[in-house]
Amino acid sequence: MSDVPTITTIAQRAGVSIASVSRVLNGLPTRAETESRVMSAARELGYVPNSAARSLKSRRSNQVGFAIADIGNPVYLAMIREIQPLLKAAGYRLVLHSTNVDAADEIDVLRGLGERYVDGLIMIPLRVTGEHLKMFAAARAPIVIIGSVPEGTPVDNVRTDSRKGVRLAVEHLHQLGRRRIGFVNGPLDTVPGAARSAAYAEALAGLGLPYDPDLVEVGDFYRPEGARAAARLIGRVPDLDALLCANDLIALGALDVLRRERRRVPEEVAVASMDDTDLATVAWPPLTSVSLGSAERGRAAAELLLDRLAHGDRAPRVVTVEPRLVIRASTVGEEGP
Amino acid sequence: MSDVPTITTIAQRAGVSIASVSRVLNGLPTRAETESRVMSAARELGYVPNSAARSLKSRRSNQVGFAIADIGNPVYLAMIREIQPLLKAAGYRLVLHSTNVDAADEIDVLRGLGERYVDGLIMIPLRVTGEHLKMFAAARAPIVIIGSVPEGTPVDNVRTDSRKGVRLAVEHLHQLGRRRIGFVNGPLDTVPGAARSAAYAEALAGLGLPYDPDLVEVGDFYRPEGARAAARLIGRVPDLDALLCANDLIALGALDVLRRERRRVPEEVAVASMDDTDLATVAWPPLTSVSLGSAERGRAAAELLLDRLAHGDRAPRVVTVEPRLVIRASTVGEEGP
Repeated sequence: MSDVPTITTIAQRAGVSIASVSRVLNGLPTRAETESRVMSAARELGYVPNSAARSLKSRRSNQVGFAIADIGNPVYLAMIREIQPLLKAAGYRLVLHSTNVDAADEIDVLRGLGERYVDGLIMIPLRVTGEHLKMFAAARAPIVIIGSVPEGTPVDNVRTDSRKGVRLAVEHLHQLGRRRIGFVNGPLDTVPGAARSAAYAEALAGLGLPYDPDLVEVGDFYRPEGARAAARLIGRVPDLDALLCANDLIALGALDVLRRERRRVPEEVAVASMDDTDLATVAWPPLTSVSLGSAERGRAAAELLLDRLAHGDRAPRVVTVEPRLVIRASTVGEEGP
Repeated sequence: MSDVPTITTIAQRAGVSIASVSRVLNGLPTRAETESRVMSAARELGYVPNSAARSLKSRRSNQVGFAIADIGNPVYLAMIREIQPLLKAAGYRLVLHSTNVDAADEIDVLRGLGERYVDGLIMIPLRVTGEHLKMFAAARAPIVIIGSVPEGTPVDNVRTDSRKGVRLAVEHLHQLGRRRIGFVNGPLDTVPGAARSAAYAEALAGLGLPYDPDLVEVGDFYRPEGARAAARLIGRVPDLDALLCANDLIALGALDVLRRERRRVPEEVAVASMDDTDLATVAWPPLTSVSLGSAERGRAAAELLLDRLAHGDRAPRVVTVEPRLVIRASTVGEEGP
């Protein structure tokens, strides 16, 4: 490693004390002549003015991280499309982390905050563990969480009312005369899975419909798992006349199964979904889906982070985005809404 | 900045020389007792063992970058799904950069290599400018390029034979009896756009079909632009009986238009595409699409980068992945291949 320039070799080359090199590289007040000698020695030795040295000096790496659970889920795309230009305009490069729903990966990304690779982080944890909360509290850089976090968590937070979103979908299906409304959900130990599960039961109760456990299947938030869960549900409940899917990927899987089973959508089975991603308009028939305001949530998260980066300490803020139902052919047929 | 721990304050706290602190933080041989005193002083002062200091020491930031043109194009997903686990197994965190086809953003990412945010970079530039080539040559960390680069570019390179891919699609449409085969391409000043354009002409010539400029439209590699280009083409050539689209997003736009125009796919217009992304099986009818081996290209790129990170200098390597045609209903109908 002797070829690696160090503060010692720079000091020798510049003919100044190691303390002077340290002061210069750490951006502390130094005589101009000393600073120039140190900097040219550093250049001559090929010393890389490194991110952390600059972040100690300028407090900026000029990068902001966005940690998402599944790069394959376009719900995050709508967020990225809002976040990236806002950050870029403020002089920050966006770096994405796909954690594959792995809490350990999320913790690793949070740990990266201490290493100053990024000046701030936007994160959408599917599960919020105690370890997450510890890292949030100890974080050396601003964090914005998209999704629900326990009250009093010391981070800026953007959330939506997914319970209301589920209610909008169930009420829509009910208005269409559907009474056997199945529900295909993701894991119940995830924040969205738990919220959607509770909301589905609430919505039925609000409409005076009985809660039938046979009508509920749990898979995962991906297309193949959604297809398998939908197949189990349709096999078990032949008279099912509607399906609510916890996200668009699950709904794609459900459409695959219904097509295979030759069940007409929506005539025999109306299908509604959540997230209103690009996939909702790629699918055939196009999916009625509840928009949880992904674009708005992304914009709000970027604005909160930039505000925090600009103004430092202030009380954490919570921004809530309202869901809305987007009606398409999968519930009302090709003639459309 | 006085609260920021520096090598000087650590030396004072540890009661050792600044040179000793420097040696410890730079991982140079030091007496064990000195090292432990320096490290505990650093801890007590909340000194962040920072990325660049560690990279000077261990030469590792433990991050690898993957720079892609459009996070909204699932062609990159298949690559990420291969790259991420390989890197993770080797102890690297993957960070994604979406450059939105902006060469300046790509250059900015390349510049980031010098700052040691990442130990290596995998990049898919849509355009390779002179600035790119300069940065490739000057890069302080390993780069793997997926896509075509000029001969002799000093980087590891993974490519596919997109010309052969186009030929496979055109020959398939020809075998189906189609003779008026339209082509909807992306910008001709992009590497893939230029290659596909030349390949379409070659393929027609190889089949003894005339090249009719009326049958070619250029838009961009996105769904709305693809729809507009397809609409122009279909409007201009009413007897068109097949459409080749330069990627799946363009094909989705073409299917939107054909549905609107009530042209039956494939009976009246057969549609073939390229990239064979997840979207090909979401679309209705499912898209016949040429796989350019995205998964294989991703795996090869990760393996080349890890090999380079492990073994340093060696001659640049080129890995070529063969395309293959995946036949679905958009060309052969619902009965399938």
